[in-house]
Amino acid sequence: MQYLLTVSGPDGVGETVIEGGSTLLDALIAAGMDHMEAPCSGKGLCGKCRVRASGALSPPEPRERELLSEAELAAGLRLACRTCALGDVVIQRSVAGEAAILARGVSVEVAPDSPCVAVPLVLPASTLDDQLDDESRLLRALAGVLPSGRAPFSVRFSALAPLAAARGPSGLTAIVAGTEVLAVEPDSRPRRRFGIGVDIGTTTVVAHLVDLATGERLGHRSAVNDQRAFGADVISRIAATIERPDGLAELRGRIASQIGGMVHSLARSAGAAPADILTLAVAGNTTMLHLLAAVPPAAIAVAPFSAVFTRARACSPRDLGLDLPESCAVFLLPGVSGYVGADIVAGIMAVGMAERRETALLLDIGTNGEIALGGADGILCCATAAGPAFEGAGIEMGMGGVAGAVDSVWTDGSNLGSTTIGGEPALGLCGSGVIDALAVFLDCGLVDATGRVADAEEAAFLPAGIASLRREGGPRLYVDPAAGIYLSQGDIRQIQLAKAAIAAGIEVLLTRAGKSAGDIDRVYLAGGFGSALDLKSAIRIGLLPRELRDRVVVAGNTAGEGAVAACLSRDRLAECDRIRELCSYVELSSRPDFNAAYVEHMMFPEAK
Amino acid sequence: MQYLLTVSGPDGVGETVIEGGSTLLDALIAAGMDHMEAPCSGKGLCGKCRVRASGALSPPEPRERELLSEAELAAGLRLACRTCALGDVVIQRSVAGEAAILARGVSVEVAPDSPCVAVPLVLPASTLDDQLDDESRLLRALAGVLPSGRAPFSVRFSALAPLAAARGPSGLTAIVAGTEVLAVEPDSRPRRRFGIGVDIGTTTVVAHLVDLATGERLGHRSAVNDQRAFGADVISRIAATIERPDGLAELRGRIASQIGGMVHSLARSAGAAPADILTLAVAGNTTMLHLLAAVPPAAIAVAPFSAVFTRARACSPRDLGLDLPESCAVFLLPGVSGYVGADIVAGIMAVGMAERRETALLLDIGTNGEIALGGADGILCCATAAGPAFEGAGIEMGMGGVAGAVDSVWTDGSNLGSTTIGGEPALGLCGSGVIDALAVFLDCGLVDATGRVADAEEAAFLPAGIASLRREGGPRLYVDPAAGIYLSQGDIRQIQLAKAAIAAGIEVLLTRAGKSAGDIDRVYLAGGFGSALDLKSAIRIGLLPRELRDRVVVAGNTAGEGAVAACLSRDRLAECDRIRELCSYVELSSRPDFNAAYVEHMMFPEAK
Repeated sequence: MQYLLTVSGPDGVGETVIEGGSTLLDALIAAGMDHMEAPCSGKGLCGKCRVRASGALSPPEPRERELLSEAELAAGLRLACRTCALGDVVIQRSVAGEAAILARGVSVEVAPDSPCVAVPLVLPASTLDDQLDDESRLLRALAGVLPSGRAPFSVRFSALAPLAAARGPSGLTAIVAGTEVLAVEPDSRPRRRFGIGVDIGTTTVVAHLVDLATGERLGHRSAVNDQRAFGADVISRIAATIERPDGLAELRGRIASQIGGMVHSLARSAGAAPADILTLAVAGNTTMLHLLAAVPPAAIAVAPFSAVFTRARACSPRDLGLDLPESCAVFLLPGVSGYVGADIVAGIMAVGMAERRETALLLDIGTNGEIALGGADGILCCATAAGPAFEGAGIEMGMGGVAGAVDSVWTDGSNLGSTTIGGEPALGLCGSGVIDALAVFLDCGLVDATGRVADAEEAAFLPAGIASLRREGGPRLYVDPAAGIYLSQGDIRQIQLAKAAIAAGIEVLLTRAGKSAGDIDRVYLAGGFGSALDLKSAIRIGLLPRELRDRVVVAGNTAGEGAVAACLSRDRLAECDRIRELCSYVELSSRPDFNAAYVEHMMFPEAK
Repeated sequence: MQYLLTVSGPDGVGETVIEGGSTLLDALIAAGMDHMEAPCSGKGLCGKCRVRASGALSPPEPRERELLSEAELAAGLRLACRTCALGDVVIQRSVAGEAAILARGVSVEVAPDSPCVAVPLVLPASTLDDQLDDESRLLRALAGVLPSGRAPFSVRFSALAPLAAARGPSGLTAIVAGTEVLAVEPDSRPRRRFGIGVDIGTTTVVAHLVDLATGERLGHRSAVNDQRAFGADVISRIAATIERPDGLAELRGRIASQIGGMVHSLARSAGAAPADILTLAVAGNTTMLHLLAAVPPAAIAVAPFSAVFTRARACSPRDLGLDLPESCAVFLLPGVSGYVGADIVAGIMAVGMAERRETALLLDIGTNGEIALGGADGILCCATAAGPAFEGAGIEMGMGGVAGAVDSVWTDGSNLGSTTIGGEPALGLCGSGVIDALAVFLDCGLVDATGRVADAEEAAFLPAGIASLRREGGPRLYVDPAAGIYLSQGDIRQIQLAKAAIAAGIEVLLTRAGKSAGDIDRVYLAGGFGSALDLKSAIRIGLLPRELRDRVVVAGNTAGEGAVAACLSRDRLAECDRIRELCSYVELSSRPDFNAAYVEHMMFPEAK
């Protein structure tokens, strides 16, 4: 029998004829969809070939019941390699390979209404009966064309001379931000104007170019933070500002010229002049923004970890050492505290948590795990010193998420399988590989609930293929013996500490909010870590409560998204201030309940 | 008989025994008060020896009735040379030599409450339970100690690093202006702080140093405007900005460095550091403020004479090219139009016109005669192109009011007398000398009501001493034949044009206000011109309406006084904005009634 397979996905809707009784995986591959994720080659081991399918399907196999939760099955998720077509079938391709993830990436809905606008005007010539000064004449004209509440009160000093020069019939364009006219250009012909949203991460700097009128994304630049030479984490950057004679100036110079370079490069790519970039909205952790502002961040490094500033700042490029025209309005987004910065506030704004009455959890796991819990009625935030284990750093075979990194690991109980990024020969483990590997070792009994690696005697009771992965030298557990990729006992302790810190942080916030994990309606995983994470593995090692397994949104670079939204929309920019006020910072280091929860979460959960 | 003469004056109260029947002038000279003004040596000719006397006095002589008005006599004014002591007498020395002037100089009552204040604080150290960022902590502390409405909203960028450095038990001092913390100093010990009021005249620049806490005047600097080399008047300065390649930068550099020099010199004289100067309030005509701000003033020079800016500006020294710390709040006072500048607004504020319901007239006569008429219900302003005749410029023998300038002239009907500044040999005529001379020539018939100098035949009918003053060469009328000091027919035409412009300006404003000269309750003569002016002569030549003769306050440098008041008091500073709104500018050049009045006032009034 032949049936119709309809596949709707990001690339559109396609129909193909399939043989009755074939697996969905085979059918999809036959239909040319060979970019399906199926690392175990359809053996029902890795669980990566999930699809949302409906129609005449074979009932779930036991292996599917193991790898998929009730909720996932109820939502129509199946393993494509274990499910057969018994009639016409429809597959939603968008969730293929995405496990229980509700959505991938957030897209902020923004009605473009930039905090900095270009207003073309032809001023009526002054006459003997109306000698109003140019400044007042301009402000009056702007009050006539701008919505009430947007009209500026004054003209910046540096714009007065250009204003004087812009008299006449060819008109002028006023660049307006807040209550001020920032600049005056001697031409009233409308031009395309741009905004840039920047996220300064400790590791990575990203800048997105958008069209301020349409909101269209036009490109981005992304690079390793040029301050990297001064240390990988926030603390070593701060140390550099203290230990080096001109450290602060050096670090500020690096980031200012890096951002300036990205802005100029983006402008060139769009055929725009630097003066066409009207708005720069900058997110970043509190230390990164201090460095950009050339404000000493030293106090952030030591208890009580207080910042010099966390409020939003509207400033000129000159204030930040940026080589950009004065007409560019730069907004440093607000943060909450020394360790819950503008990146988190921007992220909360981007995912829309502060607008909804449901209880949401935002997790941004990098070197520090920042956690925000709440919604429109209030948000609790904390930061945990999770360490860089989840970024693959501090792990013996750890590496970043680049080609050759083992990024997923699975087992069928008697053997291990793994994949690498780009299918390259394995070189090490990236964050998601570390978590997958540990989850697998827990599942197959090579690591116990306390994190201890089985000794040789204990391992002897395990299937031979599994037992052979344990070798002395720490001991070590091999993920890929041929390539020499392993997790050591020490690595496992690192992960244990990191996941305990995050899990305890979540628990403390829940306790403080009078809630439990089951009350969380939605979890946003922010940052690169969340994007690659295998959710089941994260739950298996106890990083996330089991209750959240089907409530996760992999939200992507929420800080960058927030910055883009803020540069496009005054409302979004103002929303950041509101979020700052909505947030209460919970300092974990001073809370006995955190220490208790930390110790408790050191244990790995029992297998389900 | 001997009587007691009590003299109270600026130097204190003195008592002396005098011979009954002696003139008050003789008595005062005998008592050592030989600095009495009596240019005619007590002949009852010049009217300069006026005193306010009470007690047993001889009745007014006819000559006193001629030289003093009823109001003056009623106010106790007498000519000291014509009044005899018939018993004990009290003389108020302060008005000696001041004719009918109600008061000399204005002193603004200011409760010191500077727009920029230094607030010493010791911030509570942050703790793990209170990790508020330093900026928020400072703003919270300031909200606690400052009156509501004065608490700032943000900390200026450049103050963040000093704020970070100022943690700790020795405290800090926040410099606050408007809604912003301008600077943070690492010390909470209170220091004396200062303000400086500056008036930038086209001719003269004056800066006054005051103690911001007490309002005490501590000194001043005054000098010819360093831009003088670029022309004597506003129009030639503007021309220099257009004609010279870097004219605007040159002119701005001159005035910025001149003001900077005065500020530093004043600071040194008070033993203060530049950082102790918290406030600089700057008055000046609109062109002078454009030049200081490096904003092209070209449009002020040509119809419709519009300025680029006239609103008040709070700015940083950097905006103006001033070599002063960022902590100094600089306020450019607001003006009304291209030719009614911040000097007039500051003057209106200083004399208190805008606070009273009475109708006042403020006259500031220099190169341009600025006129303001009104009170709390509204003020009409205009500027007349009076030309520099009243400053002695454009007059053949004219000169500034310096030693050797003839500054007063009088006649007894058959001869002329005159004095010079400092009693030096006569070199020329200053403004007051010009007006006196013309008034005298009118009185004695050498000039008729049309301004025509009598021809030789007509002069032959005059007393020989008078007739001999007329000589050919224009013709010329000699004030001091020996020294060769004269007024020419051309000079008289100049004066005629200038006084007609001012008188017509007053008339237009009165008409527009629906009032007549008699409705004016008070006249403020502002500037150096008013200080030296002989009021009767000014009325004689028709510069001022006769009705105003006993309503004049010689107000001195009202612009400088206003600037001082503004730097001492937020209310006074805000009052300037209110006055700007209260003022309506009347452009004379577009009004047919001005031209009519101008022609009409070309005539000199008939002698009373």
